Amino acid sequence: MEDIVAPELDVAQWFNAEAPPSLAALRGRVVALHAFQMLCPGCVQGGLPQARKIAALFPPAEVAVIGLHTVFEHHEAMTPVSLAAFIHEYRLTFPIGVDRPSDGGPIPRTMEAYGFRGTPSLVLIDRRGRIRRHSFGAEDDMRVGAEIALLVAEKDGAAAG
Amino acid sequence: MEDIVAPELDVAQWFNAEAPPSLAALRGRVVALHAFQMLCPGCVQGGLPQARKIAALFPPAEVAVIGLHTVFEHHEAMTPVSLAAFIHEYRLTFPIGVDRPSDGGPIPRTMEAYGFRGTPSLVLIDRRGRIRRHSFGAEDDMRVGAEIALLVAEKDGAAAG
Amino acid sequence: MEDIVAPELDVAQWFNAEAPPSLAALRGRVVALHAFQMLCPGCVQGGLPQARKIAALFPPAEVAVIGLHTVFEHHEAMTPVSLAAFIHEYRLTFPIGVDRPSDGGPIPRTMEAYGFRGTPSLVLIDRRGRIRRHSFGAEDDMRVGAEIALLVAEKDGAAAG
Amino acid sequence: MEDIVAPELDVAQWFNAEAPPSLAALRGRVVALHAFQMLCPGCVQGGLPQARKIAALFPPAEVAVIGLHTVFEHHEAMTPVSLAAFIHEYRLTFPIGVDRPSDGGPIPRTMEAYGFRGTPSLVLIDRRGRIRRHSFGAEDDMRVGAEIALLVAEKDGAAAG
Repeated sequence: MEDIVAPELDVAQWFNAEAPPSLAALRGRVVALHAFQMLCPGCVQGGLPQARKIAALFPPAEVAVIGLHTVFEHHEAMTPVSLAAFIHEYRLTFPIGVDRPSDGGPIPRTMEAYGFRGTPSLVLIDRRGRIRRHSFGAEDDMRVGAEIALLVAEKDGAAAG
Repeated sequence: MEDIVAPELDVAQWFNAEAPPSLAALRGRVVALHAFQMLCPGCVQGGLPQARKIAALFPPAEVAVIGLHTVFEHHEAMTPVSLAAFIHEYRLTFPIGVDRPSDGGPIPRTMEAYGFRGTPSLVLIDRRGRIRRHSFGAEDDMRVGAEIALLVAEKDGAAAG
Repeated sequence: MEDIVAPELDVAQWFNAEAPPSLAALRGRVVALHAFQMLCPGCVQGGLPQARKIAALFPPAEVAVIGLHTVFEHHEAMTPVSLAAFIHEYRLTFPIGVDRPSDGGPIPRTMEAYGFRGTPSLVLIDRRGRIRRHSFGAEDDMRVGAEIALLVAEKDGAAAG
Repeated sequence: MEDIVAPELDVAQWFNAEAPPSLAALRGRVVALHAFQMLCPGCVQGGLPQARKIAALFPPAEVAVIGLHTVFEHHEAMTPVSLAAFIHEYRLTFPIGVDRPSDGGPIPRTMEAYGFRGTPSLVLIDRRGRIRRHSFGAEDDMRVGAEIALLVAEKDGAAAG
């Protein structure tokens, strides 16, 4: 089966980013895309600490950790101004984008494009921009570490083995 | 040393309460007053789970758990509408009041009256409405359980022993 | 219902004790009797850390923490020489007695007398030497703290309230 | 720098193994060698759960998890009969060897050959039998998962990249 090319991020506002990141510009690096909501307990307790670990373990030149604030409920409770304070209080330092709200419904645009079932969701994108892993809910650290390492090892853009 | 009578709560809005609670009306019961901010990591990880445990362990007729949202920073990020979603997502069921903002500064009124140093803060109030314990930061569950039990045991309003 | 007087401990060997403790000699103090086996995972992860917390929180003049090594399986694997190393490695400092083996079966004598269903078991004994709490399995720290505090508060040997 | 060929295991007795494993026979697979002592708290709380996770995550045909009971202190407390009960109670299912005692000192032979500084120690051995990782103390699950995955990816026996 062919892996799907990861849809570009549709982001209304970035935090922790001097220039707006894009998957196009990150081509050549592995991307760990972590979709979350700031008031989702599973994200706060599991997903975000894992994203922080990924950012600490792998060299930024090899692996880019990108947070995506995909608000699909309680929209008025999780505005960018609240997110900014959340990022500050939880000491998150990787780039975090606000998924652009949809005109016609509660699901924001990038979430719609990727078909996220909820938060937290983790997407691993390889050096060629293809989706290699797409999971919903708590993920084991050891498994995630193993999967990212293998994607990093695809130096030439081809799967190892 | 005389114990200080707990200042009345100055609350702008209540959640999880049919009628607005007051310390005056709670006289005769022990009150565990838990001051927090919804974006304070130490509150989310330690203080609020402890408050929930207190509410589950002690009979409501003996011990009233009251949450107090004492916003003293990032005011625009922790509005009542955000707090409502937080309470929903974290399944908090005890009464939670929004500490009334001050006209002249960042510290809300009840926080000012009690002299809280930050969040989380825990205040234990005895059946006669006096402050018997006032602590800032993480508290050990076993110690808190022991202290509340002793206050509950003061059936006649007098300290045991 | 009358509370049962706690049977005296039948111990073959003591660790961390200058003079062999006895419930008779501890009369007047609350006793937290923690029955464990050194190779029982639930004891190592839950029961013994809780016993250590009790010993750290309550004044020794009020509460005596006593460990009881009640070996009822794998007898040859949990001899006193192994227990001594276990106590050293886990830095246990409260008195620990080896429950005296039975002549006729796998259940040691104090375990038989108390009717322990397994390990960990926690027995709380009041100042008058009566069993007030007898539980098997993991216990919540807050609940245990509350129960011990109430027993400590019975200064005159009578239940509070 | 050349990686060192892992010295063969010198084991007095095996548990959980129909035929005695040897590094020679495991050539072609990655080996995670976990050295521990059954009464070492850091092994019980961190090292052994990690070894169990490795065994659950990676296919046995690719990664062999081998426990090594390297007793260098309290020898009389951690005999094979005690180890057998420990393995049973902690539900360890991967092969575990008893490092052969030395004639002349407290350090057993395989520990001596590898130069372990203590327990827990983790050694990762590649498909060609060379030591690629040698660490003492707690190791992060994500890092260990990443390192093992890379060794597994060396299908042809050559390092990726």
